[in-house]
Amino acid sequence: MKTLVIISHPEYDDSETQAFLKKAVQNFTNVTWHRLPNQQTFDPEEEQRLLMQFERIVFQFPMYWYSAPASLKQWEDDVLTRSFTFATEQARLAHKELLIVTSLGYPENDFQAGSREGFSISEMLVPYRALAYRSGMKFMSPLVISQFAYLTEAQKSQLLIKYQQYLTATDPFSFTAKQNWVIEQLQTELAKTTDKMKLQLIIDQLTENQSELAGLKEQIKLIRQEEEG
Amino acid sequence: MKTLVIISHPEYDDSETQAFLKKAVQNFTNVTWHRLPNQQTFDPEEEQRLLMQFERIVFQFPMYWYSAPASLKQWEDDVLTRSFTFATEQARLAHKELLIVTSLGYPENDFQAGSREGFSISEMLVPYRALAYRSGMKFMSPLVISQFAYLTEAQKSQLLIKYQQYLTATDPFSFTAKQNWVIEQLQTELAKTTDKMKLQLIIDQLTENQSELAGLKEQIKLIRQEEEG
Repeated sequence: MKTLVIISHPEYDDSETQAFLKKAVQNFTNVTWHRLPNQQTFDPEEEQRLLMQFERIVFQFPMYWYSAPASLKQWEDDVLTRSFTFATEQARLAHKELLIVTSLGYPENDFQAGSREGFSISEMLVPYRALAYRSGMKFMSPLVISQFAYLTEAQKSQLLIKYQQYLTATDPFSFTAKQNWVIEQLQTELAKTTDKMKLQLIIDQLTENQSELAGLKEQIKLIRQEEEG
Repeated sequence: MKTLVIISHPEYDDSETQAFLKKAVQNFTNVTWHRLPNQQTFDPEEEQRLLMQFERIVFQFPMYWYSAPASLKQWEDDVLTRSFTFATEQARLAHKELLIVTSLGYPENDFQAGSREGFSISEMLVPYRALAYRSGMKFMSPLVISQFAYLTEAQKSQLLIKYQQYLTATDPFSFTAKQNWVIEQLQTELAKTTDKMKLQLIIDQLTENQSELAGLKEQIKLIRQEEEG
């Protein structure tokens, strides 16, 4: 599976979050980084050709006024022509996956009814969900990164793995797919006998998975004991 | 009350809808037309100074991928700085009204769960509703114009009046405010002894109102008769 990451960020070069995310996937040959320029129009045919080479399309951006910065909107307006996009016409995006990766300057808790922002992330993303719906794409659960600057090193390590999985695992929300993904990564890394930190992260993830498994086994044991009364 | 109409339309000069709307309010001195350029950034201070002169702010645009074209997003990103906008900071927009006037290429019926677009207009407008919420603005019921090209002359006449009311009546959704607005218009027109077509429209509107009033009176009569048994 190949993934295209379309990045919309007016101050990309100053963004620690974007630098972190880029580094996280720099060794993944199946991930392509596509940064959008500001205040420019796009060549629809060129961009459409690019889209056709990928199965997962990522819209990656800091949340500005509850949606992507203007450059992604410009890209949508120029590139996603009706005939190319609509499920009722050429449906060239049908069955691809659409993933939103968005960063927030405020706690995710603020985004709910009655809270500071008044609406949930799921509600704010309706225009993208409607785009997926209209074009026959599968809308994935978004990856929301809130207040990156305040994350601890441990939280950043978790985010790194999570981001890699969201971009490259076939089903990043299933336990089995995650487990398989980790094993794949481990094999790749071992083959290259490369940097220790990443190996450590993978081992941590495996340990976490194992403890989750152990917890499940313990629960099953208790249920059996109760049954045997 | 003064109204600022901010128009975002990449092909403004070719738009029959926009030409119609502009003509509809050309004689209203309390309405200012502010067309946004494409692929340009905005001077926040200049735009903020402009905003401060109006009580009602209109975002007017054709719906492109379930929101405004990129130029309005660029304007939001540049002009609506946190300190200026947030209700928790300077709150310079607080208590102003925000009105969305949007045109659709498809029937409004398509915009609901299970229908072709899958989501309602109210859902799609969440990013603007959240902006109003965060800045303390009053979000007005949007004016949705669907398939302008297919409207009959009678429907266009109705739209013209409705648009004028949405832009200039103090409460365009109350019967009394509408009635007062019509009378005001009539007085202005009579003073100028001007074009007949517009007068005819106003008379039509008055007639409609009168028939609604007559209907209400009839209902009250029936209720009284029942009471008197």
